[in-house]
Amino acid sequence: MPSEEIGPMTLLPIGIIHSPYIRREDIPRQGRLSLEICEIEVFPQYVAALKDVDQCTHLFVIFWLHLAERDRLSATPPHDGKEHGVFATRSPNRPNPLALDIVELVGVEGGKLRVKGMDALDGSMLLDIKPYSAGIDSFPQARIAWQKDGEA
Amino acid sequence: MPSEEIGPMTLLPIGIIHSPYIRREDIPRQGRLSLEICEIEVFPQYVAALKDVDQCTHLFVIFWLHLAERDRLSATPPHDGKEHGVFATRSPNRPNPLALDIVELVGVEGGKLRVKGMDALDGSMLLDIKPYSAGIDSFPQARIAWQKDGEA
Repeated sequence: MPSEEIGPMTLLPIGIIHSPYIRREDIPRQGRLSLEICEIEVFPQYVAALKDVDQCTHLFVIFWLHLAERDRLSATPPHDGKEHGVFATRSPNRPNPLALDIVELVGVEGGKLRVKGMDALDGSMLLDIKPYSAGIDSFPQARIAWQKDGEA
Repeated sequence: MPSEEIGPMTLLPIGIIHSPYIRREDIPRQGRLSLEICEIEVFPQYVAALKDVDQCTHLFVIFWLHLAERDRLSATPPHDGKEHGVFATRSPNRPNPLALDIVELVGVEGGKLRVKGMDALDGSMLLDIKPYSAGIDSFPQARIAWQKDGEA
């Protein structure tokens, strides 16, 4: 299918993320491994889509990196000090500023999810939630040759 | 940060996915576990962002589900036969039609990546590539209570 048949790709804000991280520099280097609880507030018109999410222990959360620089093609992660293409890193600066976190679900109450393991700035726009399935999403054998300590 | 401070969230096509799946019904139920090789073609202006991607064994690939119905809030997976909220499933029909595959990287040549484990329709628009890191992305202990066979 030629790309011109696909219309504009515009995202809807489906919720907002409340986190303790107000500025970029507040996010700990290993934010995804921190024990801080963040709250995902799903907007009322999408709460029905959460049915049975409470039966998942882990979730993928996709959100918008509103402060990202979209014209950057390389990044130098602080722990590594070497320049890599942005698609080989988790840098927020990338052509499409989509963040992907895997979080542990701590509790659900109506449209509010309490989760552990987010590194989102407070006020980030929620885009999608998907169940994490050990059977299809866990690859303990995955390797990144230049990576020493499990980070990218 | 109030949401009105965040501008429109519009995605750029950064490449195109070539797959053997021409129609929706061509995608095998366990497409992500199939051995078919797909080719991800990154557009020339973004090829520099692939530097060092060849050092990763597994990648997250985010692409646009252009045939999705965005107004659906529930889905009934065929293997389960029960209705769940779309955020508890991997249904392509969801408010923001973002697909997330974890693929095994088979080879890279310039802007072309050969990968295993995609369930994208031929011609899907590529949105992002991220390295999969066993240390932060593998959760073999994750559970989905209603799920028997590792699918969602």
